[in-house]
Amino acid sequence: MTPYTNMFHLKFLLQEVHQVNDLFSLEKFSHLNWEQVWMIVESAKLLADRDMAPFFKEMDETPARYDGKGGVVTHPQLKTIIRQAAEQGWIGGAAKFEHGGLQLPMMIYNAGQHIFQAANNGCQGYFSLSAGAAALITSFGNEEQIKTFVPHVYEGRWQATMALTEPQAGSSLTDIVTSARLVGDGVYNIKGQKIFISGGQHEACDNFIHLTLARIEGAPPGVKGISLFIIPKFWPEKDGTLKYNDVFCAGDFQKMGQRGYSTTHLAFGDQDNCRGWLLGEPHKGLSYMFQMMNEARIGVGQTAASVAMAAYQASLQYANERPQGRLPSEKDPMKPPTMIINHPDVQRMLLTQKAIAEGALSLAMECNRLYDLAHASSGDEQHSSWLLLEILTPIVKTYSSEHGSRSAALAIQILGGYGFTTDFPVQQHYRDLKIMSIYEGTTGIQSLDLLGRKVMMEKGKALHELLKAVGDTINKADTYEVLKPYAKNLRDELQRIQSVLVHLGKFATAAELDRYLSDAAIFMDQISYVVIAWQWLKQATIAYTQLQSANFSMQVREFYEGKVHTMKFFFRYELPHAEACAKTIMDPEFLTNLKKREVFV
Amino acid sequence: MTPYTNMFHLKFLLQEVHQVNDLFSLEKFSHLNWEQVWMIVESAKLLADRDMAPFFKEMDETPARYDGKGGVVTHPQLKTIIRQAAEQGWIGGAAKFEHGGLQLPMMIYNAGQHIFQAANNGCQGYFSLSAGAAALITSFGNEEQIKTFVPHVYEGRWQATMALTEPQAGSSLTDIVTSARLVGDGVYNIKGQKIFISGGQHEACDNFIHLTLARIEGAPPGVKGISLFIIPKFWPEKDGTLKYNDVFCAGDFQKMGQRGYSTTHLAFGDQDNCRGWLLGEPHKGLSYMFQMMNEARIGVGQTAASVAMAAYQASLQYANERPQGRLPSEKDPMKPPTMIINHPDVQRMLLTQKAIAEGALSLAMECNRLYDLAHASSGDEQHSSWLLLEILTPIVKTYSSEHGSRSAALAIQILGGYGFTTDFPVQQHYRDLKIMSIYEGTTGIQSLDLLGRKVMMEKGKALHELLKAVGDTINKADTYEVLKPYAKNLRDELQRIQSVLVHLGKFATAAELDRYLSDAAIFMDQISYVVIAWQWLKQATIAYTQLQSANFSMQVREFYEGKVHTMKFFFRYELPHAEACAKTIMDPEFLTNLKKREVFV
Repeated sequence: MTPYTNMFHLKFLLQEVHQVNDLFSLEKFSHLNWEQVWMIVESAKLLADRDMAPFFKEMDETPARYDGKGGVVTHPQLKTIIRQAAEQGWIGGAAKFEHGGLQLPMMIYNAGQHIFQAANNGCQGYFSLSAGAAALITSFGNEEQIKTFVPHVYEGRWQATMALTEPQAGSSLTDIVTSARLVGDGVYNIKGQKIFISGGQHEACDNFIHLTLARIEGAPPGVKGISLFIIPKFWPEKDGTLKYNDVFCAGDFQKMGQRGYSTTHLAFGDQDNCRGWLLGEPHKGLSYMFQMMNEARIGVGQTAASVAMAAYQASLQYANERPQGRLPSEKDPMKPPTMIINHPDVQRMLLTQKAIAEGALSLAMECNRLYDLAHASSGDEQHSSWLLLEILTPIVKTYSSEHGSRSAALAIQILGGYGFTTDFPVQQHYRDLKIMSIYEGTTGIQSLDLLGRKVMMEKGKALHELLKAVGDTINKADTYEVLKPYAKNLRDELQRIQSVLVHLGKFATAAELDRYLSDAAIFMDQISYVVIAWQWLKQATIAYTQLQSANFSMQVREFYEGKVHTMKFFFRYELPHAEACAKTIMDPEFLTNLKKREVFV
Repeated sequence: MTPYTNMFHLKFLLQEVHQVNDLFSLEKFSHLNWEQVWMIVESAKLLADRDMAPFFKEMDETPARYDGKGGVVTHPQLKTIIRQAAEQGWIGGAAKFEHGGLQLPMMIYNAGQHIFQAANNGCQGYFSLSAGAAALITSFGNEEQIKTFVPHVYEGRWQATMALTEPQAGSSLTDIVTSARLVGDGVYNIKGQKIFISGGQHEACDNFIHLTLARIEGAPPGVKGISLFIIPKFWPEKDGTLKYNDVFCAGDFQKMGQRGYSTTHLAFGDQDNCRGWLLGEPHKGLSYMFQMMNEARIGVGQTAASVAMAAYQASLQYANERPQGRLPSEKDPMKPPTMIINHPDVQRMLLTQKAIAEGALSLAMECNRLYDLAHASSGDEQHSSWLLLEILTPIVKTYSSEHGSRSAALAIQILGGYGFTTDFPVQQHYRDLKIMSIYEGTTGIQSLDLLGRKVMMEKGKALHELLKAVGDTINKADTYEVLKPYAKNLRDELQRIQSVLVHLGKFATAAELDRYLSDAAIFMDQISYVVIAWQWLKQATIAYTQLQSANFSMQVREFYEGKVHTMKFFFRYELPHAEACAKTIMDPEFLTNLKKREVFV
């Protein structure tokens, strides 16, 4: 089997870099210890090896497809995958005991998901969607709603989804028109169309629970008039029977990647007979939905990192096994060819991938840890964790997806012509990855969120938390002679971010808001380089500390040396582009404010 | 029909930027004038609109596939396309009159090919391969060989291919083992396997002529022992009959893109009955092949630019027609949504695409012009054109393919979720484009060619020609106040390239050759930014000159203004990354020389 992740590295991230053990002293996680959670993570690997990875290619080659009459045909293995994952706790595992969960920290739950994402990202989507939607019901639903829906979802028998996008509105949720008319007791008559509903219909589950944004008649315009509804495809009656609820799947989008994952078009209430159950209070739907949305954004970022990891692992294996060519210094054509991993340019491509995939995964784990602290700790720690998570969420989502695609392109490049063929998985990784910069808000949307909301929130406190966290890592690195230059480099980059924000600050008034935000995507790129450099300096400092103090097997020593080496590589090959981004932003001319769009002629 | 190129822009490149009219004063092209050649180019557009563009999606969805017994099933339209293209001169058009061609300048021939590449890049491959292979026969073959093969190829009845890659050798032609044993009179018995042979078998032609690299028994090792053979699938006997020549198609690779284009595995001499006809002299095969290879590299670069152009045009149309969201400064949700082209970030993505696609296409046209001068002019002009073309060839190939992929990713991004679906062409552009950085030598190979051969050739004369050409453009731009800062910026970047080369020069000894070349790909990226900046400054200077001197319709004025604007955009958003590349290269540590490959653990 082609390798798709590195368990030793995952353990390093959990145990040494992001210190999952800290969490076990919190009351919520006091029932756990390291040995237990690592066994749980290892069980995910067994499951992925047996039931997911072997079907990665097949599920791409037999895409989910609409049957013309409301159904979506999916690969038969999907049912096994969802049921097995549910049985082992990989749908409801992060939920509280009272809701039938294992009360796992998000770090552990998502360490398992990472394995699934790397093994077969399309099918992992089904259960992370179910988990996120069920969590929304447990957060904001009443007891009856929780009891009615959540257990079925955690058992993997019912699929839960999130239904936001409408054909005419796209990313603009302000313009949602799906309507809801009260018919009594929290139940509404629903009418509307939703598109791009992942997992909205397939053959592996018996029922579909759509958490749907809609507008109650008479609601205020804009996002302040949006409510959230639970709309099951089959309504569970009091007597336990299921009754068709006028939720019709009208199509399944065919895509360039994630082809085994259904992407449906849903019509609610074509026969005027669709009921939705209001979740929480009216008009607060968007803020509720953002619980799931924020988790989903971290999840998409982590998925992108995981798929990039799988492509890296596949190309690394190939580079280690494929003899081809000789070094430029070797002029004798009679000498046998060398393994391609010995070519400096192949090493460059591997190190770039390692830097991106492992850097992004480390950031995702940082976010998972912050999620746990924001939910299970208290006081200042809770608030500062939440603030830091808020500012990192658009970054982990965007960096991992944008640079993940670049990383997978290098995996193809290492395989050469073979990489472009369906005989190898890297082209599928590349295709699958492309959606990650679009899911749950495009890179453009994430960048507006970062610069327009997160940088400014609580008078810059979230940004302050970020600067402080990076500063802590810099201070630790500064204690080692070898790491000092990198610590200084990162400190300079923090300073550069502040200069850019001072420059942009001039435009952060209502009158020039469009100008302020116009280069948000470039600012995103700049800060992303710095944040990933932080993750690398953090990993390298820990690895370097280990190298000073202990005796290891050769392999472990090389692992730590590889960490320090890759940190240096990232600082040398990637980080200089942060300065280029700053240069772009600081330029005085406003070039993307074309009233005369005809210059595109 | 979704637009795929811009004829007004193509005319601008041919007539104003690269002054095709100059060529008509050369004897070889003295039979032509502007009106004629533009009519020829326009005929390509009609053909592409009618016979190619409408089948772009279909040919992707019904990929070329092996029939299990030596044949490759292709889309029925392919036959019409090849015959129509042949009839209108789009296979043999650049050949001399004496070989049945129209003696068109490469600029005009490739202006037509650009249209086909943008309309349906997979099918254009078939005829550019035939054209290149036939040109090789006319260059190095004897009269009988030319008479026997070339007319059939130009008629589009026989497909010609290039057969280099072998399974065990990949990019390393040194390691070719296909063997040739003399059986008499220039004819050899051939035995061997070739893979990734584009157009090696399909349903639209009656015969296949494989220009094949093989090693004559007893030949010296390495590339100096490689000869070039014409190996037809069916051997044309003296009496005009065709006899099966033991060339068996053993498979067709399935790919992530260019799916309508066959990519075959060929077995020569399985029955010990395959004859090859030596082309030119023994052991000179590789140098002959490089005629075709160099043209093919420019062709691949141009194709990448053309596909990026098609993706840009499709996303531009979408951005002009799709209402969604409001500007950040607009807080009223009751206001109707704006067209997405009005969002600064969408403008940024469109301008980035325009800058890449039009910049790369301009560079391809520069190369086509140099090709014409190197073949049809004389004396110093001929030699300096050839030198400049030599150094630009790996650059146009690499920049267009690497940045073209980035450009098509932005096209997907503009369409959001729709861009990922097969309902829109941009995802196909993105998939098709990925092969361009692998065809005819990967980015790694091109970068070694640039830094290891081209920069050093004739004691740096090729590089000198490049610096001189860029300097000429800078001097012209310097005469306008508005363009001065950009001229200065580009001059600084030329200086930076020289500093980098001085730095690298320290390693350019035999002992440190591996180190010298280790960052060749980063140097490629650096010089590419500068070369495309040159093309933009050239276009902008011409556009700005026009804006000073003449009265135009509003539309033409906006076109010129758009050129100046996009130049500014490129200098601000793209060019700063050249400095980042230089910083990477100048770092003293050698990080991609890992003897201990285990750091990848």
